[in-house]
Amino acid sequence: MAVITVLGAGMMGSALCVPLVDRGHEVRLVGTHLDGAIIESLQAGHFHPTMKLDLPAAIRPYPAEALPAAMEGAELVALGVSSAGIDWATSQLAPFARPGLPIVMITKGLELREGRLGVLPDRVQRGLPEAVRDTVFPAAIAGPCIAGELARRVPTCVVVTGRDAGTLARLAEALRGPYYHVFPCADVIGAEVSAALKNAYAMGVAFGVGLHEKAGGVAGSVAMHNWESAVFAQAIREMMRVTALLGGDPLTVTGLPGVGDLDVTMNGGRTGRFGRWLGLGLGVAASVARMEGATLECLEILAVMREGLAAHEARGELRPGELPLLRQMMAVALDDAPVAMPFERFFAEGAG
Amino acid sequence: MAVITVLGAGMMGSALCVPLVDRGHEVRLVGTHLDGAIIESLQAGHFHPTMKLDLPAAIRPYPAEALPAAMEGAELVALGVSSAGIDWATSQLAPFARPGLPIVMITKGLELREGRLGVLPDRVQRGLPEAVRDTVFPAAIAGPCIAGELARRVPTCVVVTGRDAGTLARLAEALRGPYYHVFPCADVIGAEVSAALKNAYAMGVAFGVGLHEKAGGVAGSVAMHNWESAVFAQAIREMMRVTALLGGDPLTVTGLPGVGDLDVTMNGGRTGRFGRWLGLGLGVAASVARMEGATLECLEILAVMREGLAAHEARGELRPGELPLLRQMMAVALDDAPVAMPFERFFAEGAG
Repeated sequence: MAVITVLGAGMMGSALCVPLVDRGHEVRLVGTHLDGAIIESLQAGHFHPTMKLDLPAAIRPYPAEALPAAMEGAELVALGVSSAGIDWATSQLAPFARPGLPIVMITKGLELREGRLGVLPDRVQRGLPEAVRDTVFPAAIAGPCIAGELARRVPTCVVVTGRDAGTLARLAEALRGPYYHVFPCADVIGAEVSAALKNAYAMGVAFGVGLHEKAGGVAGSVAMHNWESAVFAQAIREMMRVTALLGGDPLTVTGLPGVGDLDVTMNGGRTGRFGRWLGLGLGVAASVARMEGATLECLEILAVMREGLAAHEARGELRPGELPLLRQMMAVALDDAPVAMPFERFFAEGAG
Repeated sequence: MAVITVLGAGMMGSALCVPLVDRGHEVRLVGTHLDGAIIESLQAGHFHPTMKLDLPAAIRPYPAEALPAAMEGAELVALGVSSAGIDWATSQLAPFARPGLPIVMITKGLELREGRLGVLPDRVQRGLPEAVRDTVFPAAIAGPCIAGELARRVPTCVVVTGRDAGTLARLAEALRGPYYHVFPCADVIGAEVSAALKNAYAMGVAFGVGLHEKAGGVAGSVAMHNWESAVFAQAIREMMRVTALLGGDPLTVTGLPGVGDLDVTMNGGRTGRFGRWLGLGLGVAASVARMEGATLECLEILAVMREGLAAHEARGELRPGELPLLRQMMAVALDDAPVAMPFERFFAEGAG
């Protein structure tokens, strides 16, 4: 068993600790400077206030300033910060990185760098000290995982993905347990594109919920599910296209990171609520206001993608007619365009 | 515009008539001998009793015995019977088949013939008179389409698939309308495998709903969605494998017929209810009894698949460890095995 340090005590970082302590690891959960109240609550009595759940007493909470102590003897590090905090987390981690240290991220997102879209494990690697950069290959977890369910030990299947097969095998072995099924996935591009884009596409599917309500409908087995499932299928096709564009394997999207994660994201959650407001026709400003300050990963990734697609398109790697759903979601969620789905432009590469 | 005769006045056959009359076609809806009450109700006042909806007055209802009149001058025929009725429907249609007649089916299922699994459009073609068999290529509709939604003009995307590209182009042109988006799909194997298997896999995903309730949980955003979405992703992978086994294109499964249709089937409906009973641990007999005589396509297709897989396996085309989810669903729904999901055997060909 190993000493594992998790940086970031939000929902997903904290949930990940549960299968790890159940596995017998020594698990240290370090809050960021935004997690002060969470760490205090965990120290006082193991209760996680945003997850509204008692966590196992074996998880050891550390405040941000105690990171050096939490990193002492750490054999595996998990990064549980949001995409906005990834550079900060890397810089915090850098002084403690030793050659071969396994790092696994649950942060989702894509970066735009020198006119190309890229994945966050590569960004973390670039942020590590030169002395360890050749032996540390940051990995990431992707797949359908609602934090509150993992923390309640609901059977969960995820992939661990990255650029080094040896690291992946060691991570999968360290992370997996009786209810946490961890599969190595060599295609970091496909897994991370899926993980990042699913929030945007889940918003698009949820437009249908709002449109149905706007038309006077009530939730039920007859609603606008045909509309939503057509958008779902097109979403998978577009994630496959973006994966191919960035040099990944489109087949990765058909497994846990794409199909599985988009499906799970449709079950409640803030992305679905936000898409519903847009579908109801509230417009971007009012919809954002109703989310009461919650991080909207869907807007972050749409902004990155807009800039990224323009760059790839300018080099002729993407045609203007491709990704009609993604472009329509950008128009709705970034430019306040009406929610009108261009179904007739879907499945242009074959609908099967 | 054309004269279109739809044979079978159940939910889906009747729903299909709505976009067709809206398109301006002359639409004749012919009941089977089981649809007497539906046709009488439609004749009396356009009300469809099982769909609980008024249909457009322009749809012309015909009782089963009036088939010859309904076929007079028909330029396109749609088969809307259940898979159990497909041979009967083919024999009814046979006397009226003329060379080149476009036939489109909404019947879902697979057949086992001479030790090989096959698709129903091929079975219908074999049932046609020899004089027309070389010029009539039955096609099929697949994709996410809840009948009650199509009948309410909810935007819907489907594929029309079959073995003759010319027929598909003509059918897509005749069927499509402003809210009914019809895409031709050349891979009849992938589309029909998806359409047939989605009922079985939807049952498997719904096991999770029952398991959650059995454990004392209530429906919500934290439930057993991680479990369900892992099963969903494995389901797509297994549909891809079966498609490849039968000589189709696995990519077809990633579009409307597989991903889209499995997603839509999770929204209520009898397959989901049945899977929930099994997940609750009621056992097969009690679960079937609670369905009050409803046709359970999931059990029909599982029985066909069990025999079919055994035949393909005996020839070495399939390994015993493949399709673990499908095999587990057979054990649960045909043999009353406990609902225990073999997650550790999932994604053996790569989880990405």
